Amino acid sequence: MNPSSILKDVETIRKTAPLIHNITNYVVMNNSANALLALGASPVMAHAVPEVEEMVQIAGALVVNIGTLSDPWIEAMFKAAKKAKLRRIPIVIDPVGVGATQYRTTTARTLIETTAPSIIRGNGSEIMALCKQDIMTKGVDSTSASDQAIDSAKGLAREFDCVVCISGEIDYIVSKESIIQVKNGHAMMPSVTGLGCTATALCGAFAAINQEYDKAVAHAMAVMGIAGEMAAQNAQGPGSLQVNFIDALYQLSASHIEEFFKA
Amino acid sequence: MNPSSILKDVETIRKTAPLIHNITNYVVMNNSANALLALGASPVMAHAVPEVEEMVQIAGALVVNIGTLSDPWIEAMFKAAKKAKLRRIPIVIDPVGVGATQYRTTTARTLIETTAPSIIRGNGSEIMALCKQDIMTKGVDSTSASDQAIDSAKGLAREFDCVVCISGEIDYIVSKESIIQVKNGHAMMPSVTGLGCTATALCGAFAAINQEYDKAVAHAMAVMGIAGEMAAQNAQGPGSLQVNFIDALYQLSASHIEEFFKA
Amino acid sequence: MNPSSILKDVETIRKTAPLIHNITNYVVMNNSANALLALGASPVMAHAVPEVEEMVQIAGALVVNIGTLSDPWIEAMFKAAKKAKLRRIPIVIDPVGVGATQYRTTTARTLIETTAPSIIRGNGSEIMALCKQDIMTKGVDSTSASDQAIDSAKGLAREFDCVVCISGEIDYIVSKESIIQVKNGHAMMPSVTGLGCTATALCGAFAAINQEYDKAVAHAMAVMGIAGEMAAQNAQGPGSLQVNFIDALYQLSASHIEEFFKA
Repeated sequence: MNPSSILKDVETIRKTAPLIHNITNYVVMNNSANALLALGASPVMAHAVPEVEEMVQIAGALVVNIGTLSDPWIEAMFKAAKKAKLRRIPIVIDPVGVGATQYRTTTARTLIETTAPSIIRGNGSEIMALCKQDIMTKGVDSTSASDQAIDSAKGLAREFDCVVCISGEIDYIVSKESIIQVKNGHAMMPSVTGLGCTATALCGAFAAINQEYDKAVAHAMAVMGIAGEMAAQNAQGPGSLQVNFIDALYQLSASHIEEFFKA
Repeated sequence: MNPSSILKDVETIRKTAPLIHNITNYVVMNNSANALLALGASPVMAHAVPEVEEMVQIAGALVVNIGTLSDPWIEAMFKAAKKAKLRRIPIVIDPVGVGATQYRTTTARTLIETTAPSIIRGNGSEIMALCKQDIMTKGVDSTSASDQAIDSAKGLAREFDCVVCISGEIDYIVSKESIIQVKNGHAMMPSVTGLGCTATALCGAFAAINQEYDKAVAHAMAVMGIAGEMAAQNAQGPGSLQVNFIDALYQLSASHIEEFFKA
Repeated sequence: MNPSSILKDVETIRKTAPLIHNITNYVVMNNSANALLALGASPVMAHAVPEVEEMVQIAGALVVNIGTLSDPWIEAMFKAAKKAKLRRIPIVIDPVGVGATQYRTTTARTLIETTAPSIIRGNGSEIMALCKQDIMTKGVDSTSASDQAIDSAKGLAREFDCVVCISGEIDYIVSKESIIQVKNGHAMMPSVTGLGCTATALCGAFAAINQEYDKAVAHAMAVMGIAGEMAAQNAQGPGSLQVNFIDALYQLSASHIEEFFKA
């Protein structure tokens, strides 16, 4: 990964505007949609069982996020993922709050076992909880640093032949072959609700146009971090950070990437 | 339509604060409610089958938006629309993403056929898809310019005796008798998710206080465009545009309308 | 209540980051989560019947808000509240729009009768409607000044041995023993959708760390008002007020509280 490989993917997204089908939580729908639009992708949120297959049919990637789960949504997630698998488009899973309740843990594990997603993105606690280690997740916020979860991520990457992204102060993108570190980001970002979910949505956009999924995810996380740092420059707190972050995704240029990227 | 007719409706909304009952999608609920409040109307979001009739009973307009559809919501939409019809309050329908899935197309068509709404507002692709033309809708973003959809809008206006608003670079408000063009707006507005849905909600507010629905819709779309242009003056991207847009609706004065209105 | 007692609670929240379990409405989920995070608490939104008990098990407070009610959510609210009662963690109820429909009134009354919540927070109309007085609630906005509802609040406080907060230009925190007035706040705040719901969420955070619930609520409402006044200083309208409000909660320091607190 380097500034020009990041820029290349961003430009492809802006040129092709891939349709990203999100089955995601109520809290972040608006922000995720705005982030995808600001980046240049075309978001759609749809969760009804009767329509998810048709929506997947025209999508470039499927993003499944279990943040505000309920039974009808789970049914739609499985149906959509099955169709995405058939179409061989990337599936990105965000196991929000896995480990906090049995319901989330079972749903996330079963989704992953059934659909073999291309990408899993979570914080340290979530990735460890997915691995059935005895981790106590506190609601939806992480109680573990991202580097503590690397072994869990390696296990998941091997077991499901997928890319696992652990987000944190440093993001680790773990595949069977390698680990890529992403060092961009800002300390205020975890104070904005759902920026992790937004990261997952962006992973969908990059994976829709770059089939090397480890690189796609690294590019997505680098763009998240760079936009976060750009946003923090004039932020007075998490309210303005969120607004500036969307603006930064929209403005993001070659020179921003050059200036902010941390190797 | 002229600045003083727009202002007159805005002032009536501010003075009477009509209650606008929205059955709308999860993505835009917050923004639509804030836009209605900032304009001076009183929004309520309610979708439960057991309560929608009572809520319609005290409302000045009903806004139905199919953006994140599911079966229980469809049932509520039909029930609410039936009651709104009985009370002869305006019904505004936003057929978000119609044409993308059969589920949306069938729901939107049946809603329109059953309830004969006062107003339909959509982008070019959506209005054409409603007309059963062979249009490929890409998720929820338009693939057609607004002027391509004028014939479809005319057909719908005749068939259902309603006002059809095609939003785009130029908005066309099509009724059986006439076509009004609205030229205000800003190129960055489609990069904010759900501003179309917000436009639909504002159509509800204007229709609640102005029974000449074609003019009510023209005024609503002009206010959308003017507030968008005001917002864009200090926007760094779609994040700040959305924030400024709400501020602009709140600030909107006679002199703003005079200054920005494009005949 | 004085600046140092407010500060003490804020510092405890920041140090202990209590998990606040919200079963709340779609319109405000994002804003309430962001407000809790900005204050220093840890929000989780979860409403599925199979998981609410487990989530309550790890939470410091349960916040139940009926703003966009439906049957599956009601079932979850009762189940969660029963568990919260068993665990003796505070339950905060926000009866949004009670009085507007029978569905809301019945749900809110039954929730309160069944769970004997620690805290009820509503606007003047809502508190009066809860008391079965013949009050016409107009959707979710108040039609009564907060002081008109004091007798109703006293009745509720006695009947259910709870703290009742009537929010308005002056907030009244009514318990069996006393009435505390909170005079902070800004006239533009009711133009932001869901700031009342955010107040309720903050009451949950303060009650999670301060078992004197009347004081906890007074502190929460003072922080709401102070952050609102701080936010209004540079707000151009309700859009920027909302953004600045989150920033203000994040920045809130001893000197801000000293400067803005109105005795």
